[in-house]
Amino acid sequence: MLKPTTAAKKVSSLTGPASFFSPQTAAIIGASKKPGKIGYAILKNMIDCGFKGKIYPINPKEDEIAGLQCYHSIRDIGSAVDLAVVAVPAKLTVGVAEECGIAGAKNLVVVTAGFKETGKEGMVLERELTRICRRYGMRLLGPNCVGMMDTHVPINASFSAVFPAAGDIAFISQSGAMLLAILDWSLANRVGFSQVISLGNKADLNEADFIAAAAEDPQTRVILCYIEDVARGEQFLQAAREASRRKPVIILKSGTSQAGARAASSHTGALAGSDLAYETAFRQSGVIRARSMAELFDLAVAFSRQPVPAGDRVAVVTNAGGPGIIATDHIERAHLNMSRFSKETSDALRAGLPPESAVYNPVDVLGDAGADRYRLALDQTLADPGTDSALVLVCPTAVTNVEETARAIVDSHRNHPDKPVFVAYMGGETLAPGARLVAAAGIPVYTFPEPAIAAISGMVRYARTCRRPAREEPDALPDANRALVADILKAVKNEGRLVLLGSEATRVAEAYGIAAAPVALAGSPREAAQKAGEIGFPVVMKVASPQIMHKTDVGGVQVGINSPQEAERAFMQIHENVQRYLPRAVIHGVEVQKMMPKGTELIIGMTQDVQFGPLIAFGLGGIYVNLLKDVSFRLAGSLGAGEAQAMLTETRAYTLLRGYRGEKPADIKALTNMITRVARLVLDFPQIAEMDINPVFAYPDGAAALDIKITVS
Amino acid sequence: MLKPTTAAKKVSSLTGPASFFSPQTAAIIGASKKPGKIGYAILKNMIDCGFKGKIYPINPKEDEIAGLQCYHSIRDIGSAVDLAVVAVPAKLTVGVAEECGIAGAKNLVVVTAGFKETGKEGMVLERELTRICRRYGMRLLGPNCVGMMDTHVPINASFSAVFPAAGDIAFISQSGAMLLAILDWSLANRVGFSQVISLGNKADLNEADFIAAAAEDPQTRVILCYIEDVARGEQFLQAAREASRRKPVIILKSGTSQAGARAASSHTGALAGSDLAYETAFRQSGVIRARSMAELFDLAVAFSRQPVPAGDRVAVVTNAGGPGIIATDHIERAHLNMSRFSKETSDALRAGLPPESAVYNPVDVLGDAGADRYRLALDQTLADPGTDSALVLVCPTAVTNVEETARAIVDSHRNHPDKPVFVAYMGGETLAPGARLVAAAGIPVYTFPEPAIAAISGMVRYARTCRRPAREEPDALPDANRALVADILKAVKNEGRLVLLGSEATRVAEAYGIAAAPVALAGSPREAAQKAGEIGFPVVMKVASPQIMHKTDVGGVQVGINSPQEAERAFMQIHENVQRYLPRAVIHGVEVQKMMPKGTELIIGMTQDVQFGPLIAFGLGGIYVNLLKDVSFRLAGSLGAGEAQAMLTETRAYTLLRGYRGEKPADIKALTNMITRVARLVLDFPQIAEMDINPVFAYPDGAAALDIKITVS
Repeated sequence: MLKPTTAAKKVSSLTGPASFFSPQTAAIIGASKKPGKIGYAILKNMIDCGFKGKIYPINPKEDEIAGLQCYHSIRDIGSAVDLAVVAVPAKLTVGVAEECGIAGAKNLVVVTAGFKETGKEGMVLERELTRICRRYGMRLLGPNCVGMMDTHVPINASFSAVFPAAGDIAFISQSGAMLLAILDWSLANRVGFSQVISLGNKADLNEADFIAAAAEDPQTRVILCYIEDVARGEQFLQAAREASRRKPVIILKSGTSQAGARAASSHTGALAGSDLAYETAFRQSGVIRARSMAELFDLAVAFSRQPVPAGDRVAVVTNAGGPGIIATDHIERAHLNMSRFSKETSDALRAGLPPESAVYNPVDVLGDAGADRYRLALDQTLADPGTDSALVLVCPTAVTNVEETARAIVDSHRNHPDKPVFVAYMGGETLAPGARLVAAAGIPVYTFPEPAIAAISGMVRYARTCRRPAREEPDALPDANRALVADILKAVKNEGRLVLLGSEATRVAEAYGIAAAPVALAGSPREAAQKAGEIGFPVVMKVASPQIMHKTDVGGVQVGINSPQEAERAFMQIHENVQRYLPRAVIHGVEVQKMMPKGTELIIGMTQDVQFGPLIAFGLGGIYVNLLKDVSFRLAGSLGAGEAQAMLTETRAYTLLRGYRGEKPADIKALTNMITRVARLVLDFPQIAEMDINPVFAYPDGAAALDIKITVS
Repeated sequence: MLKPTTAAKKVSSLTGPASFFSPQTAAIIGASKKPGKIGYAILKNMIDCGFKGKIYPINPKEDEIAGLQCYHSIRDIGSAVDLAVVAVPAKLTVGVAEECGIAGAKNLVVVTAGFKETGKEGMVLERELTRICRRYGMRLLGPNCVGMMDTHVPINASFSAVFPAAGDIAFISQSGAMLLAILDWSLANRVGFSQVISLGNKADLNEADFIAAAAEDPQTRVILCYIEDVARGEQFLQAAREASRRKPVIILKSGTSQAGARAASSHTGALAGSDLAYETAFRQSGVIRARSMAELFDLAVAFSRQPVPAGDRVAVVTNAGGPGIIATDHIERAHLNMSRFSKETSDALRAGLPPESAVYNPVDVLGDAGADRYRLALDQTLADPGTDSALVLVCPTAVTNVEETARAIVDSHRNHPDKPVFVAYMGGETLAPGARLVAAAGIPVYTFPEPAIAAISGMVRYARTCRRPAREEPDALPDANRALVADILKAVKNEGRLVLLGSEATRVAEAYGIAAAPVALAGSPREAAQKAGEIGFPVVMKVASPQIMHKTDVGGVQVGINSPQEAERAFMQIHENVQRYLPRAVIHGVEVQKMMPKGTELIIGMTQDVQFGPLIAFGLGGIYVNLLKDVSFRLAGSLGAGEAQAMLTETRAYTLLRGYRGEKPADIKALTNMITRVARLVLDFPQIAEMDINPVFAYPDGAAALDIKITVS
């Protein structure tokens, strides 16, 4: 499984984070002679790993450590070093960094703890450290980290007790303890790594920088991350998007249970839980999200050792019925498909297997199957054009020749190297020799079928990601009246308001080509009658006051107004009602709105995420929107027509829109158009903090925004 | 971990399936001298396991096998045997069974394959075998099974290559291959079993029989099942219900992906997927359902080695932040709670741990923690009354003394033996000595935190099950008019109809005290006017014809009828419309129904499950019921008021019913009453095949069934 260590990489050409892995000279500041000290461990690791560059121990009290000349300061070396690994007490780090800067060091790894993670004082210290690095143009990994490694260079600038086997998995971890745990685990589980990075406090370089570096690294085939947050949303999205088109990026993100910092005064905000933005960001940037540590590593091993399947059709070969049924269940539950074999395949299986065998999927070669039956069945099912991947189940039975069967599986896989194969050896010591043989040939081995299927599912998700267009963006809208929107928002701001009036919000929407029910603000009964006449009867009239949330409850809404006289009366009635219930509310007038025919009630909304910017929501609207929670989300920044269409299909509302129980289908294009226009609007005007269009009425021809709420920050 | 084998059980007192495990005399029919033969393996297993009773090999061609006298027929033994294990070719089994019967054998294990599983001929043979067993009063395990074992008796009446370590887990498997795989796996994983049963074709004894036997078995603490179906629904429910009150019953049920055989002409039928009845049956009988093989065994080990927690509050002690966050996430995702410690606990932790430690949950004892910190933290958190269980996370760090830390964990657990403790050793060989120590003390050990949390979650579900009332049933209804319902159903049957008219269905409902909108069938315009007058205006009128599914579409419905004249006109209009659209539809007249004020639209329905009988559904109703799928289900047979209340709370509809957005809460009692009355009705009249009440209108005072559809079989 482990790839042979290749020649050291060319050093000079790399810049940025990638240059961390390939220094020609490295100083270990705080190097120590005393075992148990971190400065001892780092120096020892650098020497033991076979680092080919020059190592300079730095310690003001020593002249020699581990046979190497020790300098009292990095400035004493006399020439610039590529990498300085800093392991001095926190309070000394700023001074040391300054010396590094003066000495012309390029990159710093600060393993020392006692910064941001300890509180306010540490935060100040960390800012100072970062400032120094910026001033001297040095890049910084850490502080408060374990360090970093590259097994191919090789380099081990960390205090880890374990240097992993060389492999093709890059592992980037925000938790140092997790990283150490995984390295320890990897030895026993024969998993190798290309690069290992402990991010620490991410004062400068972050997960996005190292994802980008790993994407460029020719020795890395799979990028694995454990993160608790993302440093900069936009940078992460770009790095993840670009990396995931070249190799799989698998992320375990924890901290999902912590309540989000999102304001939730809108429907959309309330619907978007704290984890939603991450979920959406991962999906839209092609990241495969692992749900558990076991899944993270199962996926890593699968991607590292097997080709990505072309599709979702899985063939199962088993020597027992029960496990075959379990596999079938889980394949269906994972939204994968069981391969359907061609007649030729079924005939060949029937001809070669005993009559009691099952020749459809799952193929049951029976409990007394030897290697020859497994070979035949796997060869045939892998050759079938209806198969994208294969799962082989082996149960211990008296007559199984474990090693021969293993060799048959390996041979079949070699004959079809483009289709991934997974094996579940359902047993213990009896099957272990087979499991070892199969694993040594690069085929992932499991004890039970379910994790194998989870791995296939992750690979299929990745295959789909790769087929999607690189990036969608909401169309620029040359017809949009940006100046008008800017004016309205400015006027609202000048008035010291945060919420737009309905009429203002409607004008904003219309300026971006969002079809809305016409609204006009009337200041008097007469004006109401006049505006109603212009709009056309029937109309609805509502009190215009951002202070009144539930307008109906205070008699602030009158519907079905059919004449100028009725409009005048309605104006007066609304004023009277509101004055009676809320005598102190500031009233801007009465809004006269075209009464639209009933359509399918939908919601389109936007809420701002701290990390990832505007999130767009689409779903079933109306008063039960928070009850039914039938909503899909996308980041506005990568929301084109294709993604908008996908949003629609993810909701149950889509069943209605396609024409439920004989009704006419809704105008899907009008809806996707409205969604992308909303996305464009909120991207163009980041001061829009929240937006709810609820309801949007969808019609067989067109759609209309009925009630638009816009909040600015 | 493995309990010492206790003295053999008393033999004579056991009857039924339990008597299989404790025979004093056992005949092996088809015993063989040839290694590789199944009859050789069984005899060898019986001898090698240390069986204390008398063993009689039976083979017409041998006089002695393995040093034991061999009989040519079971009849030659001269005295009745308790157990006969049959391993002769399928076509000989019926004759052999007859001989066993004549010889007075009590129990038969038939391992031979070639019965029902092979098709029609085998099915006939199996029936014949079963018939013979019945005739002679013999109980039968199999055919087509691996056999059965009890490690405490001990007995090994199987051809398994592995006899497991003694333990307290009973494992009942419908798949022989699965059973052999698990026994193989158990050796390497140090899991012991009390009883192991391969069910085979379940011609006579089935999973329910052996669940009941394991419930009685004093050596069994946990009952584990792998099944693909249930032989007899009612028997299973009773056995599972009774067993699960004494010890946990954990079931992995596969075959969920196979399309159900359920008819789905009703809403309720369409909503109840093929797996739903099993899901409901497991929950209502207290069974813990495992979702994967790994979970099945993780749960078994947890229940076998640890006490059941009193509640759902988990304390986490860790030496690293990241894994603590992951654990917190998963605890929340599993609907468990993080313990909140008392001030005393936090103070004690603060006093005993370094200042940088986290003294709230999760407790972070820091990377340099030795055994003393783990001891303090675990002692304190387990002693806290707010803790029901504890999860300890150990990451490898330079200074950890692995074995001492393990001993500290074991000691703390001994001090609080009533609270379960789980450990995740997040690493490989470095931590292995600790893992072994902890596991040897009976504490379940995992590599990652997630499966530990899944195990805690399963135990908490079991604890809740144990607190529930033994069994609820829908109240008998002395006020119900059974005779009237019987008459109506009989009349419908006599007419050769399968679907009741709305007016008939309403009378059936009313006979069981189900409040329904009054309906009358009118045969003429005049009668319509008269009935409408009796019911009281306004009324709705609908064409009465079971052949017309969508009455509105053919102009068969008129609403808002306010006078006798309007009723007459409506009658004629409906007739005219229907005649125009569907001239060949059989029309029974026009139904006149009281027009009810609008309430919250709900559905209450029933569909019959082949195995478990009537399933009752409750949820959001109206035309979008299949779109929103907001429905909960219960088996009618154990659906009392408490369960009905629980059904309500499981739906989103409940948010509406409690009073959504300032509306008055609905009459919950009226709804639970309607649900249990429907359950009683369908139990009393099993000929009712399907029933939909959609909508039910819920009001602040009361509820009304508006549209009732009843189908008979």
